[in-house]
Amino acid sequence: MSSQPFGSLLEVDLSTGKSRVVEVAPEVIKYFIGGKGLGAYLLFKHLKPGTDPLSPDNMLMFLTGPLTGTPYPTSGRMVVVTKSPLTNLYLDSHAGGHLGSAIRWCGYDGVIVKGKASSPVYLLVSEEGVEVRDASRLWGKTVSETVKEVRREVGEDAHAAVIGPAGENLVRFAAIMIDSDEDTWRAGIAGRGGAGAVMGSKNLKALVVKAKGRKVRCADTEKLREVSRKAMELLSRTKFLKVRTAIGTSFWVEPMNRFGILPTRNFSRGFLKDAVGLYGEYLRAFVKRNASCYNCPVACGKIVEVEGGNVKVEYEDIALLGSNCLIDDVIKVAKSLKVVNELGLDAISTGNVVAFAMELRELGLLKDVPAFGDHEGQVELIRKIAYREGVGDLLAEGVARVAERVGGKAREIAMHVKGMELPGYLPRGSWGMALAYATSDRGGCHQRAWTTRAEIEGPLERFSTEGVAKFVKDTQDERAAAFSLIVCDFIPLYRPWEAVSAVTGLEFSEEDYLRGGERIWNLVRVFNIREAGIGRKDDTLPPRCFNEPLPLPPNGKFSVSLRRETFELMLNEYYALRKWGMDGRPSKEVLEKLELSKFFPEVLNFASGGGSSFSG
Amino acid sequence: MSSQPFGSLLEVDLSTGKSRVVEVAPEVIKYFIGGKGLGAYLLFKHLKPGTDPLSPDNMLMFLTGPLTGTPYPTSGRMVVVTKSPLTNLYLDSHAGGHLGSAIRWCGYDGVIVKGKASSPVYLLVSEEGVEVRDASRLWGKTVSETVKEVRREVGEDAHAAVIGPAGENLVRFAAIMIDSDEDTWRAGIAGRGGAGAVMGSKNLKALVVKAKGRKVRCADTEKLREVSRKAMELLSRTKFLKVRTAIGTSFWVEPMNRFGILPTRNFSRGFLKDAVGLYGEYLRAFVKRNASCYNCPVACGKIVEVEGGNVKVEYEDIALLGSNCLIDDVIKVAKSLKVVNELGLDAISTGNVVAFAMELRELGLLKDVPAFGDHEGQVELIRKIAYREGVGDLLAEGVARVAERVGGKAREIAMHVKGMELPGYLPRGSWGMALAYATSDRGGCHQRAWTTRAEIEGPLERFSTEGVAKFVKDTQDERAAAFSLIVCDFIPLYRPWEAVSAVTGLEFSEEDYLRGGERIWNLVRVFNIREAGIGRKDDTLPPRCFNEPLPLPPNGKFSVSLRRETFELMLNEYYALRKWGMDGRPSKEVLEKLELSKFFPEVLNFASGGGSSFSG
Repeated sequence: MSSQPFGSLLEVDLSTGKSRVVEVAPEVIKYFIGGKGLGAYLLFKHLKPGTDPLSPDNMLMFLTGPLTGTPYPTSGRMVVVTKSPLTNLYLDSHAGGHLGSAIRWCGYDGVIVKGKASSPVYLLVSEEGVEVRDASRLWGKTVSETVKEVRREVGEDAHAAVIGPAGENLVRFAAIMIDSDEDTWRAGIAGRGGAGAVMGSKNLKALVVKAKGRKVRCADTEKLREVSRKAMELLSRTKFLKVRTAIGTSFWVEPMNRFGILPTRNFSRGFLKDAVGLYGEYLRAFVKRNASCYNCPVACGKIVEVEGGNVKVEYEDIALLGSNCLIDDVIKVAKSLKVVNELGLDAISTGNVVAFAMELRELGLLKDVPAFGDHEGQVELIRKIAYREGVGDLLAEGVARVAERVGGKAREIAMHVKGMELPGYLPRGSWGMALAYATSDRGGCHQRAWTTRAEIEGPLERFSTEGVAKFVKDTQDERAAAFSLIVCDFIPLYRPWEAVSAVTGLEFSEEDYLRGGERIWNLVRVFNIREAGIGRKDDTLPPRCFNEPLPLPPNGKFSVSLRRETFELMLNEYYALRKWGMDGRPSKEVLEKLELSKFFPEVLNFASGGGSSFSG
Repeated sequence: MSSQPFGSLLEVDLSTGKSRVVEVAPEVIKYFIGGKGLGAYLLFKHLKPGTDPLSPDNMLMFLTGPLTGTPYPTSGRMVVVTKSPLTNLYLDSHAGGHLGSAIRWCGYDGVIVKGKASSPVYLLVSEEGVEVRDASRLWGKTVSETVKEVRREVGEDAHAAVIGPAGENLVRFAAIMIDSDEDTWRAGIAGRGGAGAVMGSKNLKALVVKAKGRKVRCADTEKLREVSRKAMELLSRTKFLKVRTAIGTSFWVEPMNRFGILPTRNFSRGFLKDAVGLYGEYLRAFVKRNASCYNCPVACGKIVEVEGGNVKVEYEDIALLGSNCLIDDVIKVAKSLKVVNELGLDAISTGNVVAFAMELRELGLLKDVPAFGDHEGQVELIRKIAYREGVGDLLAEGVARVAERVGGKAREIAMHVKGMELPGYLPRGSWGMALAYATSDRGGCHQRAWTTRAEIEGPLERFSTEGVAKFVKDTQDERAAAFSLIVCDFIPLYRPWEAVSAVTGLEFSEEDYLRGGERIWNLVRVFNIREAGIGRKDDTLPPRCFNEPLPLPPNGKFSVSLRRETFELMLNEYYALRKWGMDGRPSKEVLEKLELSKFFPEVLNFASGGGSSFSG
């Protein structure tokens, strides 16, 4: 058992089978908090520059934050940090469920996996440490089968992160599926960026955690209980959370479609003429029950039963597997999603890849793929991708690599940023998301700064650049801190710094929290510069997003387009606010101000060149 | 028992206590169908021109249509037709529930009440005919108390239409409450236009119906069963109905607020900055169960429990009692609504009157009324209105009469058309509704042509006049026919003319159905001309709706206004499509084409003067 309240990491080298406990220095916790921040620190420090993400040298980290497993609401979340095989950049992929809490209940704050096992294995973590177990007979099994088998072996109370065939076959957008058993299908999913392929490359089928108690180390239990109680109170007064309870994230389908922001036909349009069959309100009529993560009173998960079992349907699933493929019935989406989940793919990337293939077919650039709207074809193609059969072997590489292979027009309609496929908000319909995608630290992602609600409900204005850069920058920094705690995106936070201070026993102020977020954001940027020379040229969007007129609802009579020049103005403002150079690299000044150079003197080597590059 | 399948009306004269059965000629059924159309025919034929609506001479008709109580889906609806004490015009006020079906199961197709009882009575209708019973001890009781007492007396299986204290006290917007018992609170409500006051003026506390069986006369049962089966099939394939099941009408709060159409602060704005507390999706989290009318698989009613019992909350309740009074919590709305229902008021008019009073207070024009947002004050004022206490006695007259009394600025902000208060769609935010309100046959009403969805989802375009007049005219005609069947507003219809033909045994084609709707619309117009000299000057909106800029969501930076000239252009087009003169009176031509002059030669006396008045 560790001597300090937070910072004990269990490190396993699969090549040797050896494990040890690593203690993170309190100063690192104070500056990088946990979760996302701690992962960025460890990856920057320990990963050899230029490491191939699918090589044994890559690190695969299952991390928690100081608040994980505590009474602070929505403390059930965890994060997988690694170098992404999809983007070759830093990746943090967050997941709900109960596994993160269980890791902490065993006395650890994270599990770091290195090396590669010579044959399929799974890890069993408990209070006694870690055991590497043979998983040969699990290899090839679907996600829920694997969870079932594992629980039969180690007990029904075990929590598990597993990969399906997609991860085994190194599909570059394979997911890690958490607690995805057929009964409850609570399904936390570390979906984006291909962490499942990294797991597969290590011959690791599952991380299984079995905790006896539910105790988390804490420096000041009384203080933690008090701040948690107030956080829960704030939460219970927050009306929008009741909408989440009633409808879940799929609530957003209806407004997104009304406003012309719902990705449709591989992002060529923003609405379906009749989208009722995709509404969350329509889905509601089929919902069997709600699902919740550990310690969350919201229970936003909506479980429906389809052929093959239970499945939890979210907004992003509907947008990408549904409207983006011209499939207009959420029950069909649920059926496809069930296959996606069981084979262990990321639904957002999968929906993109399938829609991209459908459009390539129309253009005569790809054969053996279904047409838009062909649901059976979609299901079959998903299967081929997971097993890398036929055309699926190409598509398993993700849209960016497919576009390079196919060439020509394919490059213009490959909907990704830095190799990561775009989620469910059309950038032409939501200019804030245009900037958010272009500057996100892991490629096309909506979770670092989600501007859409602010655009349609205020304080931002649609089709205006005013205030967008500041909104995006501030949100990215604040979320980087929140994703280090770790708590859910969906709730208002009550003085989280006090909770961190209560758990860790460190002095930790609001200033530490916010400054920490900005510090983490900048460290990740430097990592991405180090690994892939990321800069202004990469902070952009696919050609389709610029200049092409976007027809607006209700009938497409009026159009609007996002001019490249307008976008560049937002980007300039963003760099200036970040005190980055116009080349997209952090200035020496900001790296020093954030004390990153104190931890890693070499960061200054990646700073923006010359003093002429920013005006902020 | 009647000899013909549809058209047997039970007529009761409360002055004499005598009753008789009147048979309507088959030709009248073929031309005016039933429900709304039959009511218009009977009122035009039998009501003495210029009758005071609150005098014994007014007729109060509880009518069904050929499809009422049959297997055709949503056949549970009925209509109350009378001359309105709020508008002095024709009134048809529709209600769901089970009472209409029960009337038919007794062998009647409607109950016509004339005269005035010398002391409070209720009517008991059964297969044996009608009994006038003493209701002295029910007078003064609330709605659910009355239903409870009545059922104790005549049996728990009785259905009842009752008035509360508001109807007794002749509040000009008192409702007739149907099957509003505390247990189920299915609450069909004939709300609009003050039919409850007409009932009160007759000393009639309740119409109670007790049917033994569930049989409805029908000429061709096999054919009716077949078309009903197909109608039910169509309905089960209609996805939007599942949204209605899941959320109910309050689904519309969220989009209306997003689009700036939600009446806010006495119609001075179209959105609340934070309206989540009024969303149907938020309400959903408090719903105890769904409620349905007879033979309806949708069950759109959403029952919540508040202090004082159960209440069914609809979109209009939220818009008028909620945002329009600056009350932003749907649970508070539900509490106010419970009082509105128990005292027997129309929620739409009540919300308007209260908001109007709140604004008059701000302007220093009215005392002893609450401020915007004061929920306790709202509840207290509702009570005062129902009992005509203090300022409530003035407000019980409705906004039009209050505006006349107060004068000056009050006239500009009194939100009514032809004396009827406006429902939940801001005309400046929905130009189709501007025309629909102005031309509705019973004053400010949204049910004759609801354009809002077409404006925000297509085929219409917002803030454009293109196609609006035709959409409004066609919808009014079709709805006039549907409200004569009678079926619900909310479902797609499957060949209703075949169902009418099957029930009545008459030849009845699609042409008869559509032509019938237009015929009914024109007859009502002539009635309104006869009673109140209605014409172009009345087909307009309150001054606030014109020219005053309407700030748009999300932050009010942009505004739009509806110019009076723009509105007049739509109105011209509407008159031309109707083949009415530019004075707003039907042409001789159209009255003859619709064969109205065949039934009532005198209609030509009310036709548009001169031949120069329209260009259609």
